Amino acid sequence: MERLLRRCQIRNPLVRESLAECLGVYVLILFGCGTVAQVTTSQEKNGQYLSINLGFALGVTFGVFVSRGVSGAHLNPAVTLSLCVLGRHPWVKLPLYTFFQVLGAFLGAATVSLQYYDAIQSYSGGQLTVTGQTATAGIFSTYPAEYLSLGGGFLDQVIGTAALLLCVLATGDQRNTSIPDYLQPLLAGASVLVIGVSMGSNSGYALNPARDFGPRFFTYIAGWGDDVFKAGRGWWWVPLVAPCIGGLVGTLIYELLVEVHHASLSPEDQPSCQETTEGKSLELEGVGPSDGKSA
Amino acid sequence: MERLLRRCQIRNPLVRESLAECLGVYVLILFGCGTVAQVTTSQEKNGQYLSINLGFALGVTFGVFVSRGVSGAHLNPAVTLSLCVLGRHPWVKLPLYTFFQVLGAFLGAATVSLQYYDAIQSYSGGQLTVTGQTATAGIFSTYPAEYLSLGGGFLDQVIGTAALLLCVLATGDQRNTSIPDYLQPLLAGASVLVIGVSMGSNSGYALNPARDFGPRFFTYIAGWGDDVFKAGRGWWWVPLVAPCIGGLVGTLIYELLVEVHHASLSPEDQPSCQETTEGKSLELEGVGPSDGKSA
Amino acid sequence: MERLLRRCQIRNPLVRESLAECLGVYVLILFGCGTVAQVTTSQEKNGQYLSINLGFALGVTFGVFVSRGVSGAHLNPAVTLSLCVLGRHPWVKLPLYTFFQVLGAFLGAATVSLQYYDAIQSYSGGQLTVTGQTATAGIFSTYPAEYLSLGGGFLDQVIGTAALLLCVLATGDQRNTSIPDYLQPLLAGASVLVIGVSMGSNSGYALNPARDFGPRFFTYIAGWGDDVFKAGRGWWWVPLVAPCIGGLVGTLIYELLVEVHHASLSPEDQPSCQETTEGKSLELEGVGPSDGKSA
Amino acid sequence: MERLLRRCQIRNPLVRESLAECLGVYVLILFGCGTVAQVTTSQEKNGQYLSINLGFALGVTFGVFVSRGVSGAHLNPAVTLSLCVLGRHPWVKLPLYTFFQVLGAFLGAATVSLQYYDAIQSYSGGQLTVTGQTATAGIFSTYPAEYLSLGGGFLDQVIGTAALLLCVLATGDQRNTSIPDYLQPLLAGASVLVIGVSMGSNSGYALNPARDFGPRFFTYIAGWGDDVFKAGRGWWWVPLVAPCIGGLVGTLIYELLVEVHHASLSPEDQPSCQETTEGKSLELEGVGPSDGKSA
Repeated sequence: MERLLRRCQIRNPLVRESLAECLGVYVLILFGCGTVAQVTTSQEKNGQYLSINLGFALGVTFGVFVSRGVSGAHLNPAVTLSLCVLGRHPWVKLPLYTFFQVLGAFLGAATVSLQYYDAIQSYSGGQLTVTGQTATAGIFSTYPAEYLSLGGGFLDQVIGTAALLLCVLATGDQRNTSIPDYLQPLLAGASVLVIGVSMGSNSGYALNPARDFGPRFFTYIAGWGDDVFKAGRGWWWVPLVAPCIGGLVGTLIYELLVEVHHASLSPEDQPSCQETTEGKSLELEGVGPSDGKSA
Repeated sequence: MERLLRRCQIRNPLVRESLAECLGVYVLILFGCGTVAQVTTSQEKNGQYLSINLGFALGVTFGVFVSRGVSGAHLNPAVTLSLCVLGRHPWVKLPLYTFFQVLGAFLGAATVSLQYYDAIQSYSGGQLTVTGQTATAGIFSTYPAEYLSLGGGFLDQVIGTAALLLCVLATGDQRNTSIPDYLQPLLAGASVLVIGVSMGSNSGYALNPARDFGPRFFTYIAGWGDDVFKAGRGWWWVPLVAPCIGGLVGTLIYELLVEVHHASLSPEDQPSCQETTEGKSLELEGVGPSDGKSA
Repeated sequence: MERLLRRCQIRNPLVRESLAECLGVYVLILFGCGTVAQVTTSQEKNGQYLSINLGFALGVTFGVFVSRGVSGAHLNPAVTLSLCVLGRHPWVKLPLYTFFQVLGAFLGAATVSLQYYDAIQSYSGGQLTVTGQTATAGIFSTYPAEYLSLGGGFLDQVIGTAALLLCVLATGDQRNTSIPDYLQPLLAGASVLVIGVSMGSNSGYALNPARDFGPRFFTYIAGWGDDVFKAGRGWWWVPLVAPCIGGLVGTLIYELLVEVHHASLSPEDQPSCQETTEGKSLELEGVGPSDGKSA
Repeated sequence: MERLLRRCQIRNPLVRESLAECLGVYVLILFGCGTVAQVTTSQEKNGQYLSINLGFALGVTFGVFVSRGVSGAHLNPAVTLSLCVLGRHPWVKLPLYTFFQVLGAFLGAATVSLQYYDAIQSYSGGQLTVTGQTATAGIFSTYPAEYLSLGGGFLDQVIGTAALLLCVLATGDQRNTSIPDYLQPLLAGASVLVIGVSMGSNSGYALNPARDFGPRFFTYIAGWGDDVFKAGRGWWWVPLVAPCIGGLVGTLIYELLVEVHHASLSPEDQPSCQETTEGKSLELEGVGPSDGKSA
């Protein structure tokens, strides 16, 4: 068995990182959207909103555990973008990471729809709808609350994703509190948990273009039709654009208010400082450890 | 006291491992099925579905704590089988581990039925039934939801157990994220928690032939009768077969997408690699530490 | 301030340990019974059964944090008794520890009744009763469910406390899984959490003579009258006796099935083994660290 | 980007600490009050009281993570005051810390009101009221339960904040249980969680003058009017005064019952003891690490 597996070994770090991001987001969606499916189709008998918050939080935790050592476990194009802007991730990998993150989310949604096929058929009476009493599209991607304006929803996603980056950057900042590497997946999950209990009500805390678009595209081709793009006055583009902006806002806030002031940056110790920064990005965000490990 | 206890010492590692697996699964069932008994007989007054998820999760955690240092804390024939296939556990121990895992689950179910004897009598009016309004067989083993087809249930158990192995292998893979040994029982519990909130609705997430068959056999002889094998169109064999297949699927996915690509496996460093793999299996999965500790 | 405090320093380790046990149980009751008061008087609006489980679990965790370094944080006469039987705690301290554990519980109950005075008055209409629709004695000590026989309740407390000791001994056994000292308070809380979700329904999981008798005696003198001793067919003595027996049963099970088999105990290495055992008891159960720290 | 950020670097430790305290409380309010907004405006569909407990607990955890390395993460004037009295924080910084804590809370409340603008409008029908069926002032600051007397509420806040300081001092006392620095934010969150489940019912566990006054002042100027100061028979000053007294009470209890007795304080080893105490305050409470890190 060991030998058979060895034959499948891939040495190209880009392929390995892509596979890891794909599997990481797959796990996130499998558990996250799976929980929504369970709560929805059981009509809150087998779980409530807090279960959904736990499902996405632990989905992130195990998604990060699965992929962290290989790809750095961004699992979110808004995170990858922020790290690129900070100079901690190469821009050239942005489209690749994004594509495989979306692919993982698509495959995760497909698996959930398969596992809950009987339940969804029974709950919805066989009608796959986006709105109405027995709507099931909300299992897979996010839709705004009825009261929410498009501007309010946009702001909601900007604030939510800013909060996410603020938490992730703070727990990853070794010069603030030095946290062991193995706790980062748990803290990433905890930050998604607290955002879920405090910012989930308006529009379902997508916070992540891949997490929202992959499953939405799946529902589009799997029978829910083009209502998934029309509902909520054309809501679908908000969870794609707003998280990217929010991620940058959160990054800017943390950098300007805390991180940039840590170390003395006078000319003579700039190099050592930069070294520290790079070392940190390697360890904390897990970017590019493939070089040190694979070859 | 100390001296009296010493007389009972057993030096045979196989016996010690068998006792540990038995006690580990006993703890898992005592807490897990105990929670279902509490929620069922109190009619959700003293707990809800989330409590059941917590009960099984922490049941796994303490089951692993109790047995890990001795037997490796598989607590699940599907896990033992996957580790055998991966070459991290000797095939010869598979039947022994399986037998004692089932025995532990049987004894755990017996203890729960004793502790909740008055409650079950009061709740069910003395009628031990498998289906109906006051059915109590579901306290001990799993039954499918009414809407679920046999194929859908089989797939449900395959996906659930695959997710379990994916999580367990990822958190145990030191070349992905290096996690201290003492956190493994907590992460095993967390993976069962997230599977419970996201995949419990269809058929009660057995994920484990021993966890399901031991208690089912107990209910068969303790008054629930042969309905426990007939209910759900003969559901009983699904949680025996599907988790074994699911475990292998999850193992294969993690190995093929992540683990196999970690280290360079060119001919010259194959031996050192194998050494690493074996060392890892000893530490992470706890397989066979008896040699180093007992003799 | 620092100087004023220094004048109050006490060098007698017995007094210090007594104060620590008293404060530890005080914290446990303050949070544990406080949660029951909140859930009861808010009629489940500000918390449900799971909140009660969390309140007692975290009450134990912080009770242990408060006292562990000084007294070993038994917080429970049944735990002290089991450690005495195992030879890990001097018998002579048993009555002292027990007295201050009960005192701490009494003072904790008094504080809860003070903090919730207005709430209890409002909820009960000023009638402090042990049974009936607006009974409030259950905030402080445990009473059996209506369906429970005395024998069933006795067994319930034996099984519950046996499970507690099983968990505590397993997580404290460095030759099983080696766990850092600072995680022990969290794992003690987790074991009380899982016992609460799985074994709380029958009679409220006292598991601890001090936790139950101190508050019961408080309610006796504070206005609830001698119904607190009469209710449940004279239930009050069960949570005093059964946990002591249960603690010993759990200790015996863990010792006989796991711990005693760890190390080779042939005559020549007996001394080194005993040394290890003693070292462990000092670190793990925190018994008697005063010698090494105070003088 | 990195270069642009560097230009904004501030070397004055007082400014950096002020910014960190401000951001820390901002995060605490953003998540904490955000959860109340979610539970209130969704009419408990998207969360219940336990969600609120989790929101404030994790809000504290991430507020501490964000600021700990820079300012010591007091996030609460009552904590700062207690540390000043203990001689672990310079009195001169007390007003500065307090001001920026209140400012952070004000800005956090403003952000929550922005993010939940549509939801609050829809829930309240556009009427921003402090009392009544659709009152929304309780999202931001605390109000007493109807049954609560002013004296009872004062006592409630004294006990609650005393419990908070007891927990924080115990987990930070390296001579009790030695806990790694990176776990302190999680334990601070856990102590707020247990206080929330056990002491939230009477008056919403403010425990913190800044957490309460900042958002109250925001509601005063943002449309809720002077009812926010009149409601609950002029409740507003209680969460300002009582937590300060409670913090001192809790500090005194822990110091007198546990901490002062740890080390021998005979004249000859006083200096080394003081050194230990100072070293501890630096590491545990994070006071003043700027000197060691920035210059």
